[in-house]
This record gives sequence, C-alpha cells and structure tokens, in this order.
Amino acid sequence: MESNHTNLRIPGPTPVTPEILKEMSRFMINHRGDEFRQLIESVTERLKTIYETKQDLHILTASGTGAMETAIVNTLSPGDNVLAITIGAFGDRFANIAEIYGADVTILRSALGESTDPDKVTSVLNNNPNIKAVLVTHNETSTGVTNDIESIAKIVKQDFGKLLLVDGVSSVGSVPLKTDDWQCDAVASASQKGWMAPPGLAFLSFSLESWKANASSTMPNFYFDLRQYKKYMEIGQPPWTPNLSLFFALDKALDLMLREGISNIHLRHAKTAQKFRDGVQELGLKLLAKPESASDTITSVLLPDGIQAKDFLTIAKTEHNVELAGGQQSLASKIFRIGHLGLVSDEEITETLSAIKYSLEKLK
Amino acid sequence: MESNHTNLRIPGPTPVTPEILKEMSRFMINHRGDEFRQLIESVTERLKTIYETKQDLHILTASGTGAMETAIVNTLSPGDNVLAITIGAFGDRFANIAEIYGADVTILRSALGESTDPDKVTSVLNNNPNIKAVLVTHNETSTGVTNDIESIAKIVKQDFGKLLLVDGVSSVGSVPLKTDDWQCDAVASASQKGWMAPPGLAFLSFSLESWKANASSTMPNFYFDLRQYKKYMEIGQPPWTPNLSLFFALDKALDLMLREGISNIHLRHAKTAQKFRDGVQELGLKLLAKPESASDTITSVLLPDGIQAKDFLTIAKTEHNVELAGGQQSLASKIFRIGHLGLVSDEEITETLSAIKYSLEKLK
Repeated sequence: MESNHTNLRIPGPTPVTPEILKEMSRFMINHRGDEFRQLIESVTERLKTIYETKQDLHILTASGTGAMETAIVNTLSPGDNVLAITIGAFGDRFANIAEIYGADVTILRSALGESTDPDKVTSVLNNNPNIKAVLVTHNETSTGVTNDIESIAKIVKQDFGKLLLVDGVSSVGSVPLKTDDWQCDAVASASQKGWMAPPGLAFLSFSLESWKANASSTMPNFYFDLRQYKKYMEIGQPPWTPNLSLFFALDKALDLMLREGISNIHLRHAKTAQKFRDGVQELGLKLLAKPESASDTITSVLLPDGIQAKDFLTIAKTEHNVELAGGQQSLASKIFRIGHLGLVSDEEITETLSAIKYSLEKLK
Repeated sequence: MESNHTNLRIPGPTPVTPEILKEMSRFMINHRGDEFRQLIESVTERLKTIYETKQDLHILTASGTGAMETAIVNTLSPGDNVLAITIGAFGDRFANIAEIYGADVTILRSALGESTDPDKVTSVLNNNPNIKAVLVTHNETSTGVTNDIESIAKIVKQDFGKLLLVDGVSSVGSVPLKTDDWQCDAVASASQKGWMAPPGLAFLSFSLESWKANASSTMPNFYFDLRQYKKYMEIGQPPWTPNLSLFFALDKALDLMLREGISNIHLRHAKTAQKFRDGVQELGLKLLAKPESASDTITSVLLPDGIQAKDFLTIAKTEHNVELAGGQQSLASKIFRIGHLGLVSDEEITETLSAIKYSLEKLK
C-alpha cells in the first residue's frame, strides 16, 4: 500500500491493494466470447464457494442496493405480506424497496445499536400467518451491529417455512454466513465490501425456493430480471454488457481469498475488529453496539459530549490521513464509524487509533 | 495500443487506450467526500457539454439498458399509451421495458436494415391521439442503422408535444445528437461506447418536461429512482455507492474528447465509417444499411452465400486477431458487424479489412 494515499476506514469502498487494482487496467475483451465465458463461470463458482452455496448466484453490474431490489422484485408480488426486520438505515431501505413495489410490509424494528431478538421474530410470525417472506439485514452498516442470522433463519425456515431474503452486503466474505446450511433463499452482497475490489458489481445468491417464488412473482423488472441472467448464464454470458474491469479484479481477489481460506478470513476479521474495539475503549470511548452483537466489519463509536462529528472527521482526515465515516440519519451527530472489511494491516489499525486519539484531544 | 491485444471491433466495449485504462487502477476514495464531489460534478458537467444539454444529467452504476429502464420508469405510469419506434433488437428492448412496466405500447416497426420514415411517425401519432410518450432508438446497434432523430423529434415535440425518450447508447459522443435543440426529453448512453471507457456506467439526460412527467409517474422504481439521484446530486453524491474507477477513467476520456472538440469527433467517426463502408464494398461485399441511414458507429455487412457466420468470426479472431460481432436474433446467420466507435486508428481499419478479406477467402 503506498504511503501517500489515505487510510480509508469507511465501510466500503475498502482500500484495494495495488495487486488487485492492476487488474482493473487490463484491455477490454468481448463479453460475448470464450475468454469472458471462462471468466464469468470461474468467478461465479468461486463466489459460490465463499457464499457456501451450491445453488444459483448471479453477478449484476450495479451497487449492493441493486442486488437487494433484485431479491425482492424476483420473488414477490404487489400485495404480498412481508416482514421486514430492521436494525438501522439499510434494514429500512430493504423494507422501503418492498413497499415501493407494492408489498404489504410489517416492520420489526430494534433500537439503534441493538440486534434483533429472535423470539420477537417468532412472535410476529405467529401473529401474522399471512406473511410470505422475511427481509433481514445480516450486518447493519449504519450501526455496526450483526444480526444472529443463524437463529433467525431457523425460525423463519424451519418453524414457519417462509422465504428468507438477506442483505449480506457488508457481511458475506468477511463474517460467517452459511447460505445453504442456514437456508437463506437470497443473499445480496457487493464488490466493494469484504471482496477487496472497487465498487460496481453486486452479487445475489438465489435458492430453488426463490426460483419457485419467482414463477408466480409479478413485481415488474427488466434490468434486474434474474430469469434473463439465468438464461444467458447457460451460454456463459450476462444479459447486459457487464463491468469487465471489475471481473478482472474480482478474479484476482477471489484467488487471494481462497488461498487464505474462508475460515481464516473470518478469523482475521474477528481479530481485527477486536483490536479496534479494544483500542477505542482504551481511549476511554464507548461503543454503540453491545459486545455480543458488535460487527466484525464495522465499529460504531459514540462521540464524546461536545465533540462535533464534522470537525472530528475533518481533523482525522486532513491532519492524520485517516478517513473515518460519520453516522447516518439520526446517528449523524452521535457516532463515528470505522470500516474494517477486507485487508487491514496492523499498521493501519495503529494509525487509525492514533488519529482518533489526537483528533479528539485537539477538540477538547 | 499494445500489439499483442485483440483488435476489438465489436459495437462496445470499444478498445480503451492505456492512458485511460491506467486511471482504472487508481486508489479508492470516499464517495461521500470532497474529492469525489468535485469529480462527479466535473464529469457530469462535461458529459452535459457533449450531450449538448443544459438540463439534468445523471450517472448510474449500470449498463445502458439500465438507463433505458430509468427513462421509462421515471416518466410513465402503467396504462399510459406509448409509441415505440423500433428498427431492431434494441428498439424492441425499449418497447419491451415499457410493456413490462404496464404501458400500453403501440409499435412502429421498420424492416431490419431500414430507418424510420418520419411521415409514418406523423401518421401513427395522428391516428393515436392518446399517446403520451414516444420511445426511439437513435442508432440501432443490431443493424448499424441511424434514425433521423432531428426530423422525428420535430414531429414528436413541435407537431404533437409528446414526451420523447431516446436510446442514444451507441450514438451520443460519436455522432451528432443535440439534446436540447432537438428537445429530446431523456437520452440514454453508456460508458463503453463512444466515451472510450470500460463498461459499467450509464448516463441519462432528463429535461424539465421529463421532470414534469415524473411528478405524476407511478411506475415503481428504487435503484433507478432519479429523484434520489437529483436530491443527492445537490450535495455532490450519488444515492448508491458508485463505480469510482470508471469515474476516474471517464474523467480522463472526457478531457481527451473536449480537447479534440465535439464536431471534430463527429467528423472523425464519419470518416472512419466511410473507410469501412468503402473497404468492405471494395471486397465485393454488400452493406445491410442504405447509404442515407448507415451508422457512423457500426457497420453491418451481409455474409456472402454459403459462409457460416461462426466459422468466419472464429477465423478472423484466431488467425487475424480481429474480433468482429455476429448478427443478433434473425440476423444471426445473415450479417456480421464492425464496431467503430471511439478511437480507431488507420492501422486498425486496414487490419480489420484485411482480416475480413482473408477469412472469407479461406472459407470459399
């Protein structure tokens, strides 16, 4: 990593190493030719390995939000009863997409900074037998809180047999999510998160159960029509011109990830996150999330009284070369966030904690 | 251009020069920070210069098809009467999107290889007073035929006052399209065409008239909701994480384009296209398009009797390093296509014509 570029500690885009960035500069190829067919097939297979799924997975030229929309509009119909489990801004967004396309959405909301109590999911599903699908965020980027998807999935799938659509944008590839074992019917992610590539591609796993729902789904869609993706994938192509450069980068990033191994990647994220949590607490700061649901990809830290978020973030960036993220919506004046998805060196951890320390001291 | 890479003569992605490709490898930045704000504002302004519009223009992380969908779902409502003028596969796609979202679509179709007779547009609009919007392809990539948008726009806007949505994916930035002067209400394009960048970003101009239509439009959308793009653009951000690398590349490509000048670019495309048309005719081959509507970005050539498209394309690629495009759908066995958008050197023209000549000779 060159020393003259910013230590980018926002929750995506993550810093991308020169080794992967170099692939972004490769010459264009025909996206309807043999070379790209081999590339898309190989990238898709390796994404599936990390997703821990043997079912379908498609790659969209879009941001993560596009994959969340794709999950909804390919499985649901206007008027469908849907439970949206939200623990923050991205959970709200998932619910909002379903509402805009005409679903009848019941919301189960937790306080900001808390994860979802699985018992409450049981209770809402018991009280609303017409619910067809459940939307849930795995890792809430706006608060740095991780939901216990394994427990939630057990309730949604085994106890109630509903469709389970998961926003895994900032979780898959960084923290454990066993798509098939946990019976997640669709899981969205995006290239600029734990995948160590620039933004611009989104991923969506899609189970057999999802395809069954798709057969009777009537929400309109064209660019995000997964049936087109499935049909074209039979000849090793996407339906629309794909972002070739990101396929080249992802090809390299996936090599590195599989060489490291999935459980090693999860372990590394857990260790890095713990170092950040310990470090900010040693500075006397408090964490927004409780220890049991604190995210291993994003840490939210409460701003000390009297410190303005904007001043703090500006000093950290301009004087210490560390770019942190502010809070979103109602948390804007209350927290700052540290992104630690993908590769983070010990040097970057130290530099980040030091930037936080000296920026706060300057503002006291 | 390195000599060991393919002479990519498909209608997008176009070859991208090392100078522009180099920008794709730049380090990530915060897409919600000052540096990106300056970048998106500057890229948007320069795109508008080339679009010849002073109205809105938004940049989507998507393929060109995404921008076509965005034009429709942000202006129309289910049940709206729409005229779709189609001269090939991409015109059919534009009509199809409108139908899927519930529009009542009247189709005006020309024979493959022909452009739209403007008098027929007048006649259809006279006979269908309920039509609210007209969809039209400027340059039909599947046939290499360019529609006379200036004349069609005059009828649609001045004679009938309808909304005019234009697929300019393979035309803007290569051949003349005066967005404001001709009163085009929305014009879609995409980065991998004349813009000389890799695929992954799409552009959509959006007139005041389109915003008026937007106020009462009820087709559902979220990822492609232009109101979100407009709102976020006020603070120099896109609503969803953008493809940063392509913004870097486009920044460089637009510099080169504006240094050359719009009319020089149009002239260069016209000259290059003429060299291709003359060259293939000198080989004794026939063109699909009539001279008056032949595209200056894509040339469709009729395959001689007895020549299989697949064999011909394979030989041109494997033995002569020139990648041509086949025909689409019903034209698959009848034509091949030469893409000549963006930068094309005289050497590449000669190499392409020579590859065509020797590949055909081998198959005789």
